[in-house]
Amino acid sequence: MLQNVRGTRDIPPEEMIVRLKVLDIVRQMFEDFGFVPLETPALERWEVLGKKGAGGSEVLEECFRFKDKGGREVGLRYDLTVPLARFVASNPSLTLPFKRYQIDRVWRYGDVARGRLREFWQADIDIVGSKSIQADAEVVACAVLALRRLGFKKFFVRLNNRKILNELVKYAGVPCVKVVEIIRTIDKLDKIGEQGVKKELEKIVSKESTKKVMSFLKIRGKNALDKAREMIGDNDGIKELGELVEWLEAMGINEYRIDLSLARGLDYYTGPIFEIFAEEGIGSIGGGGRYDNLIKLFSGREVPATGISLGLERIIEVMREKNMIKGEKTKAKVFVAPATEDVRKEAMKIAFSLRESGIPCDTDLMDRKLGKQLEYASKMNVSFVIIVGPKDLAEGKITLRNMKSGKEKKVFLKELLKSLKSMIR
Amino acid sequence: MLQNVRGTRDIPPEEMIVRLKVLDIVRQMFEDFGFVPLETPALERWEVLGKKGAGGSEVLEECFRFKDKGGREVGLRYDLTVPLARFVASNPSLTLPFKRYQIDRVWRYGDVARGRLREFWQADIDIVGSKSIQADAEVVACAVLALRRLGFKKFFVRLNNRKILNELVKYAGVPCVKVVEIIRTIDKLDKIGEQGVKKELEKIVSKESTKKVMSFLKIRGKNALDKAREMIGDNDGIKELGELVEWLEAMGINEYRIDLSLARGLDYYTGPIFEIFAEEGIGSIGGGGRYDNLIKLFSGREVPATGISLGLERIIEVMREKNMIKGEKTKAKVFVAPATEDVRKEAMKIAFSLRESGIPCDTDLMDRKLGKQLEYASKMNVSFVIIVGPKDLAEGKITLRNMKSGKEKKVFLKELLKSLKSMIR
Repeated sequence: MLQNVRGTRDIPPEEMIVRLKVLDIVRQMFEDFGFVPLETPALERWEVLGKKGAGGSEVLEECFRFKDKGGREVGLRYDLTVPLARFVASNPSLTLPFKRYQIDRVWRYGDVARGRLREFWQADIDIVGSKSIQADAEVVACAVLALRRLGFKKFFVRLNNRKILNELVKYAGVPCVKVVEIIRTIDKLDKIGEQGVKKELEKIVSKESTKKVMSFLKIRGKNALDKAREMIGDNDGIKELGELVEWLEAMGINEYRIDLSLARGLDYYTGPIFEIFAEEGIGSIGGGGRYDNLIKLFSGREVPATGISLGLERIIEVMREKNMIKGEKTKAKVFVAPATEDVRKEAMKIAFSLRESGIPCDTDLMDRKLGKQLEYASKMNVSFVIIVGPKDLAEGKITLRNMKSGKEKKVFLKELLKSLKSMIR
Repeated sequence: MLQNVRGTRDIPPEEMIVRLKVLDIVRQMFEDFGFVPLETPALERWEVLGKKGAGGSEVLEECFRFKDKGGREVGLRYDLTVPLARFVASNPSLTLPFKRYQIDRVWRYGDVARGRLREFWQADIDIVGSKSIQADAEVVACAVLALRRLGFKKFFVRLNNRKILNELVKYAGVPCVKVVEIIRTIDKLDKIGEQGVKKELEKIVSKESTKKVMSFLKIRGKNALDKAREMIGDNDGIKELGELVEWLEAMGINEYRIDLSLARGLDYYTGPIFEIFAEEGIGSIGGGGRYDNLIKLFSGREVPATGISLGLERIIEVMREKNMIKGEKTKAKVFVAPATEDVRKEAMKIAFSLRESGIPCDTDLMDRKLGKQLEYASKMNVSFVIIVGPKDLAEGKITLRNMKSGKEKKVFLKELLKSLKSMIR
């Protein structure tokens, strides 16, 4: 009876304090890059979510979808990109480029047994209106700087281009109608391995085609683009990938790897694609790419766009595993403790005036004796306790105890604020 | 096809920037009062939401409720209090008092025609574990300080106590089973007026009872508690309300009014109840109260609790109407403009290094000529433009233009950061 909906979970305070720190850093970085916030509703009409050519059938099967009381089909969004496309389509007079960020929940009815949550957070940046590869470089740069600021040291961004995959498929002699299917299969490389992909490909195309695809996917290293060019011929995809690398190098960003096997699962990508890894051997913590046709699906107008989504759950998980952030039990730095019942209201007043001055503090609300109050303050890791006693008060003073050192001193009430401000950060 | 789900809406950037400012202030205030963040999922099992004795039948009729793919009945939460009660019930070893805040979305399938949104934000603070009226004073004080900090001048908090209403009903000779119904009717006072309430009451109870209730509801002013005591006799509700006022006065809070007609719609309240108004004649912007039995519904244990919820949509609406906050188009303060194509990468690098140093800035991503870039920067209200030209660059300089004054000066690249930091805020 008390259980959460399967695949969802509560985030208790200690974890939330960490999460909010991460969110604040990410949001600040997004704003430093000139991205502006947009909010779209959790609920979308099914006509929007289910739009043919958008996310594709696999993700739609994972949608929470139902009829509202009015009998309309609605669903909980599975990403933040499709709602953005709808927003842009329905606001034709937006100033371009439209650089928006959204940090918000999405829902997918995924396989809980494999550790997947059904309600989780994404942090997205997208640039709408620019067809320049510079825009792709901008979203990658922003994600890179955000991860650097969060303290990640070994992360890297895999880069590829859907146009290269399209050329590869042509080169391998695979009919056009199977391109999406082939790309989805390639996308499983991390999950099912080389042999797995080979087996699945052979079910879809000839052994000959499979062989060509598999040998292409093995291309790695510095000269990857040259090798690719040799095999499948020069094309826009290779050119764009080269250009993206030049932009990144210009900014001094070297946390990238060309990876011609990167495919990305969603249907809507058209050009550069990215996927971010915290380090070798740890799963993806984000990804994205260019989707020049998605907005057209909704508006009929050609509007190029590119973006990246950071997976906040995974990022925080990795940061916790690697001890990159320390937990706190409360943001309160001070606890105001009435020593006796008769000064309880004075203590409350002191707490109130500290809060008024922006000093995070707490006070007893449980009618506890002083000893129990100190225990509680210590349990919550509060740095200072202000002990309010009737004798001190008569002289206009309180006792200030440093909870780490255990040292106490008397402070005049009128100097309390100054004292505290100098001691708290 | 492009429409939002009825009753939901997008929040465009200019509005979101304002909203985030408000959210940040409110969250800071909550943390200054020692409240800690909790997140619960949007989706809850129907057994939780539909719990008898929790929100009550009226709000349940407004729930988004459906079966998930596994055939389980789930719903989108209609408030943040019921999920909190579930959380506390399923975490019996929580340190008490548990002071949590949650700023998050809730869903109610309300009447869109009357301007009600079906997806909206609440900002809640609750204190779990304290039966002291001091805790009720704490949540009221926190809400008051948050509203003061947001710049509200004329707001006030109406105060009443459910125990007084229960006594009133007894005094009026109404049978116990009708108490909830009577309270719900009284709660409509703002919506349907005195005559409306009278009419509805007469349908439920005798004319005699209605008359007694109506004359009680008219009690106002300084001596309200004394008058109430005269009419229905002394009781715990009157005592608690008096005590609450004493706590507020001790903190110097005078933004309250005793209002014996305040009822609050939800079933779960047991003691003090509050409702906040931005000013006379403007609807409610928040409310709450004590609910000592709610958690017991889920856990079997007695756990007292009290809390307040701020209605963020209404708060922001009022702040916009009253011009209390100014909109911004972007958080970027600086725009880096390459004067020619050949310095585009250098410009990108300069932008990147400013962002690295925490200076919010933007740069051209549209392959625009300088003139168009300046137009865009001006449209976005950016304060400074850094013009990057090949000649300047050869001397290690850029041109810094103040967009307000139109004045320009040459600045050495290595001094740019220092220059900007001194000028931006």
